[in-house]
Amino acid sequence: MTTPMSRRDLEFLLYEWLDVESLTSRERYSAHSRETFDAVIELSADIAMKCFAPANKIGDQNEPYVGDDGKVVLPDEVVAGLAEYRKAGLIAASFDEELGGMALPTVIRQASAVWFQAANAAMSSYNFLTIGNANLLAEYATPEQLDTWVRPMVEGRFSGTMCLSEPQAGSSLADITTKAEPAGDGSYRITGTKMWISAGDHELTENIVHLVLAKIPGGGPGVKGISLFIVPKYLADGTRNDVALVGLNHKMGNRATTNTLLNFGDGTFSPDPTPGAVGYLVGEQHRGLSYMFHMMNEARIGVGFLATALGYAGYRASLEYAKVRTQGRPVDQKDPSTKPVPIIEHADVRRMLLAQKSYVEGALAFGLYCSTLVDEAATATDTDERARLNLLLEVLTPIAKSWPSQWCLEANSLAIQVHGGYGYTREFDVEQYYRDNRLNPIHEGAHGIHGIDLLGRKVIMQGGAGLAALAETIGATVTRAREVSSAADYADALQSAVDRLVKVTAHIWSAGDPKLSLANATVYLETTGHIVIAWMWLEQLLAAAGRSGDFYDGKRAAAQYFFRYELPKTGPQLDLLTALDRTTLDVDPAWF
Amino acid sequence: MTTPMSRRDLEFLLYEWLDVESLTSRERYSAHSRETFDAVIELSADIAMKCFAPANKIGDQNEPYVGDDGKVVLPDEVVAGLAEYRKAGLIAASFDEELGGMALPTVIRQASAVWFQAANAAMSSYNFLTIGNANLLAEYATPEQLDTWVRPMVEGRFSGTMCLSEPQAGSSLADITTKAEPAGDGSYRITGTKMWISAGDHELTENIVHLVLAKIPGGGPGVKGISLFIVPKYLADGTRNDVALVGLNHKMGNRATTNTLLNFGDGTFSPDPTPGAVGYLVGEQHRGLSYMFHMMNEARIGVGFLATALGYAGYRASLEYAKVRTQGRPVDQKDPSTKPVPIIEHADVRRMLLAQKSYVEGALAFGLYCSTLVDEAATATDTDERARLNLLLEVLTPIAKSWPSQWCLEANSLAIQVHGGYGYTREFDVEQYYRDNRLNPIHEGAHGIHGIDLLGRKVIMQGGAGLAALAETIGATVTRAREVSSAADYADALQSAVDRLVKVTAHIWSAGDPKLSLANATVYLETTGHIVIAWMWLEQLLAAAGRSGDFYDGKRAAAQYFFRYELPKTGPQLDLLTALDRTTLDVDPAWF
Repeated sequence: MTTPMSRRDLEFLLYEWLDVESLTSRERYSAHSRETFDAVIELSADIAMKCFAPANKIGDQNEPYVGDDGKVVLPDEVVAGLAEYRKAGLIAASFDEELGGMALPTVIRQASAVWFQAANAAMSSYNFLTIGNANLLAEYATPEQLDTWVRPMVEGRFSGTMCLSEPQAGSSLADITTKAEPAGDGSYRITGTKMWISAGDHELTENIVHLVLAKIPGGGPGVKGISLFIVPKYLADGTRNDVALVGLNHKMGNRATTNTLLNFGDGTFSPDPTPGAVGYLVGEQHRGLSYMFHMMNEARIGVGFLATALGYAGYRASLEYAKVRTQGRPVDQKDPSTKPVPIIEHADVRRMLLAQKSYVEGALAFGLYCSTLVDEAATATDTDERARLNLLLEVLTPIAKSWPSQWCLEANSLAIQVHGGYGYTREFDVEQYYRDNRLNPIHEGAHGIHGIDLLGRKVIMQGGAGLAALAETIGATVTRAREVSSAADYADALQSAVDRLVKVTAHIWSAGDPKLSLANATVYLETTGHIVIAWMWLEQLLAAAGRSGDFYDGKRAAAQYFFRYELPKTGPQLDLLTALDRTTLDVDPAWF
Repeated sequence: MTTPMSRRDLEFLLYEWLDVESLTSRERYSAHSRETFDAVIELSADIAMKCFAPANKIGDQNEPYVGDDGKVVLPDEVVAGLAEYRKAGLIAASFDEELGGMALPTVIRQASAVWFQAANAAMSSYNFLTIGNANLLAEYATPEQLDTWVRPMVEGRFSGTMCLSEPQAGSSLADITTKAEPAGDGSYRITGTKMWISAGDHELTENIVHLVLAKIPGGGPGVKGISLFIVPKYLADGTRNDVALVGLNHKMGNRATTNTLLNFGDGTFSPDPTPGAVGYLVGEQHRGLSYMFHMMNEARIGVGFLATALGYAGYRASLEYAKVRTQGRPVDQKDPSTKPVPIIEHADVRRMLLAQKSYVEGALAFGLYCSTLVDEAATATDTDERARLNLLLEVLTPIAKSWPSQWCLEANSLAIQVHGGYGYTREFDVEQYYRDNRLNPIHEGAHGIHGIDLLGRKVIMQGGAGLAALAETIGATVTRAREVSSAADYADALQSAVDRLVKVTAHIWSAGDPKLSLANATVYLETTGHIVIAWMWLEQLLAAAGRSGDFYDGKRAAAQYFFRYELPKTGPQLDLLTALDRTTLDVDPAWF
C-alpha cells in the first residue's frame, strides 16, 4: 500500500539536510538520539496507517451530528483511532519532562504529526489543538493551572481548543464582544458566543479546555482590552460549566473535525444565579492576544503542515495512479495497434507530478526548517543568536502558513487532474484531499491577513531587521550554492529575486502612504513565498549534491522544475509591486 | 435577490459590443429582432430563477440513486424544473424551423442557456447534451432518423447523450473496444461498456437517444475504425433496447446530473438471441469521430460557458456578501471604537472581486464572441470569409473550453475566500459552485488534451493559417485601440504578447522534434488563453470608450486589472516556451 507520506523524504530532510541529530548535543534534548527520534516517527507512521487512514473516508462520509441527548456523535472508527493515538502517549512528545512530556524537539513532533495529518487531516486536528493549547499554557499558566488543566492534556485525558472568532468578528479580533466579569473569588464569569471553534465539543476526552479571548470591562479599546481565559467544559470538581453547543457547522471538507458555535454563559448549564461560564485568567489582564499569539504562531506553522500533508497525500496517490493507469501512446508512436503506455510516460502528466512534487516537498522542507528554528531558538545559549532565530521565525511564519495553503491545494487539484474523471469521484481519495485542503487558506488567519502581517509588520519590524535576517540567511545558501556547478545558475536566479524583493520592500514603504503600501500585500506575500520555497529547493539541491540514485535525481528534477517553472512567476509580481499599483484602491464599490 | 448572472452585462456584450442585432439582416435570422432575442433571454432568466435556482442545493444534497425498480430517482424539484424548461420550448431555440425550431442565433441560445447554467449547473447539462446531440444529427442524420429521433428531442420529449469514453479509454478514443456488428437489416448490434455518460439514464423524458462511438469489425486501426451510432433507450416501437445502467458515479459536485456506467448489449434487456443493443449508423462507416467532433466542438464551447456561469454565480454571491458583511477598518483608521466597514472597503477583498470580475466577464465575453463566430460562419455568403471564421473558431475552441475551466474555477475559490469561514460551509452557495466547477477541466477533453490540440493541430493547420488568422484579428482590435488614449498602452502590451506568441510558435516547431515541441503544450495553451482574454478586455474597453457611469467604469477597472495583474503572467511562460524546456521529458519515472 502506498503511504500518504514518504519515510525516505523525511529521512533525507531531517538527517541528510537539517542534521536534526545535532540537536541532541543541546542540554534539553541530550537524553535523545537518532534512535529515539526514529522510534517516535515509526510509531506515528504505524498508528497513522493503522488507525487514522482507514477512518478518513468514513469520517468524511459520516459527518458528526448532535444526538438526541445533545452529545456530539462521531463515527466509531474516528473515536477508536483517536483513542489509540492518546494511548500511545504521543500528545506528550515535545512537552517538558516535568509536565510528563518526552522533551522531544518540535521538529520531531512535527515529523510525527505529519503522518497523522496525511493519513487523516480531520482527525489530526484534535491532537494538534490540544498540543497547541497545552504549549501556550505551559508558558503562561500558574503551577495550579498546570496541574489542573495542562497535565491531563499532556496525558491525553483532556483536550483543548482555541476560541477566538465570533460570528461578527473573525479577522478583526478587536471587535470581539465576549465579556469576562470578575466573580469575586479570583475567577471570572464569561458570556458570549464563539464561532468556528474546531473540536469545540465532542465526547472523545474526559474534558475540554477552552482557551477563550474575552474583554474585561474597563480594559482598553480594541485588541488592547482582550484577556485570555481557561474555560473548561467541566470544572475541576466535575460540575458542568456553562459552555453550550449551539450548533455544528456543515463544511465542504474536514468533516470529522467538529466545528462548532458555542455559547458561553447562556444559562444552559448554570444552576448558579451569577450568569456566565466560569473562567480562569491566564497571565495578566489585557494581555490575552499576545499570549494567544504563542498558540497562533504554532498553529499557523501547524496549518502549513496540514496543507502540506494533504498535498503530499494527493501527490503520492496520483503518482501511484499515473504508474498503473494506461492510456494513449507517446507523441512519436503513430501506430494505434501498439499497447497504451502508463500515463506517467506523457509529458503533461509528468508536469503535473513534478509540480506537485516541487510544491509538497518544498513545503515539507520549509515546515521542518521552521520547526528546527523553534528548537534552536528555544535552546540557543547566545542571546543574539536566539533573537536572530526568533526574528527569522517571525518573518517566516505568515509564509509557513499561507504558502502551503495555496500551493498544496493546487497540488491537490493537479492530483485530481492526473486521475481524470476517476479523481472527481468519491471512490478515490483525491477529491476529499482537495475539499479538506480548501479550509487551510481560510482558518488561522485568512490568506490576506498574512500578507498584511508580513508586509505591514514582519518585514519592517526592528527597522527592517526581519527582512535583513531573511536575506542574509538566504544569501548564505546562495554563497554555498555558487560553489556547486549544478546549483550555481539557480543560486544567481535566487539571489537576483531576493535583491529585487529587498529593494521593492524599501520602495513600497518609501511611498509614505500605508494604504498604498499595503494595497498589494497579498501579492507581496505570494512573491516572498515563492522566493522562500526556491531557497528551500536550493538547500535540498545542495544536500543532494554529489549523491547519486533515483531519489537524489528526483530532488534535482523537482528543484529544476521549481526554478524553471515557478520562480520566474515572481518577475511580473515584483514589477507590479514596484509600480505601487493603485487598481484595487481606486475601484469604487459601485463599479462592481 | 441577487441573480447569479447579470442582465446588464449580457445586454452590454450582446448589443453594445457584439452588435448581435445585426445578425437579423442575414437571411437565416431575418424573422427575428432584438425584441424576440430579449424575449427568449428574459423567459430563460425567469424560468432559471424560478425553477432551477431553488433546486440547486436540493440537487446537490440529494444525489440521484437507483431505486428498487432499477430506475434512477432524482429529487422532485429537479424533475419539475426540467419539465418547465421543456414545456417552455427552449430546446428548440436554435434549430431550423423545418425541424420545429425557432432558428435563433447560437449566441442568443447561449445567452439563454447561461442563465440556466448559473442557476443550476447540474440541471442545465441535461438540456445542453440534448441540444448538442440533436445539432449533430441535424447535420448528419437521414430524413427518417431526423423524424424518429431528432424531432422528439427538439420538442423536448426525448433527451440525448454522447457516449465516447470507456473505463479503459477516455482521452485516448483510439482504444475504445465497443463493437458494432451489422445485423443484416441495415441496423447494427452494439456491445460494449461506456463510462462517464452524463444524463446516461433517468426518467425525465420518454426516451434517451445515445450517440455511441463504436468500431465495426474490419475498419481501420485506432480512430480510423470508429463509427457513430444512434442507440436509443427505447426503440421506435417502444421496445426496451439493451442499454443497461450498471451504476451511477458518485461525484464531488455536479451531482444532479446523473453520470453513468452503461452496458450496451449485455443481455439485460434483450429477448433477442442476437446479442447487442440495436444501433443505427449515422452517416458513413468509419467516419464517426469526425461527426462526433461536430458535437464535441459545440460541447467544448458549452463547457466553457458552464465554467463561466459557475464563476459568474460565485462572483455575484461574493460581491453581495462583501457589500453587507462588516469586518475590520481601513488601514488608516486606527481608532477601534469606530464602526467596522463592509469588507468591500478592504483592498484585498477588492482584489479578489476584481480578479473574479476580470475572469468571469472576460470568459463570458469570449464565449459569446465564439458563439457569434458560429452564427457568422453558418450564414456567411462569402466562401473565403466562411473559411476564415471557421478557422478562427477551430483555433479558439480549445481555449474557449479550457480557459474558463481553469480561471472561473479560480474565481470560485476566491468567492469562497471572500466569504471566509462561512464560504466553506454548505449553508452558503459558493462551496458548491467550487465543487461543481472542478469537473470542467476534466470532461470534454481533459485540460492537457486541449494544449496538444491547440499547439499540435490548430495553430499549425493549413500552414499556420489558424494562428495567423487569430493574430490578424487581434491586430485589428489593437489598431483601433491605439486610437483611443485610455486603451493605447494596453494595445501595445497585447500586441507585444501576440508578437511573441507568433514567434515562439514558429520557434517551437522549428525544433524538428514533435515530442519536444509538445512537451509544454499546456503552458502554451494557458499562455494563449491569457492573451485571448486580454484581447477580450481590450474589445470591451473599446465598447465602453466614451461612455460614463458605474457600469462602464467597472469595465475599465476590470480591464485595467487584467492588463496589470494577469497579462504580465505570460512573460515568464513565453520565456519557458522559448527555451524549449526539457524538464518534463527528461525526468525518469523512477525518480519520483
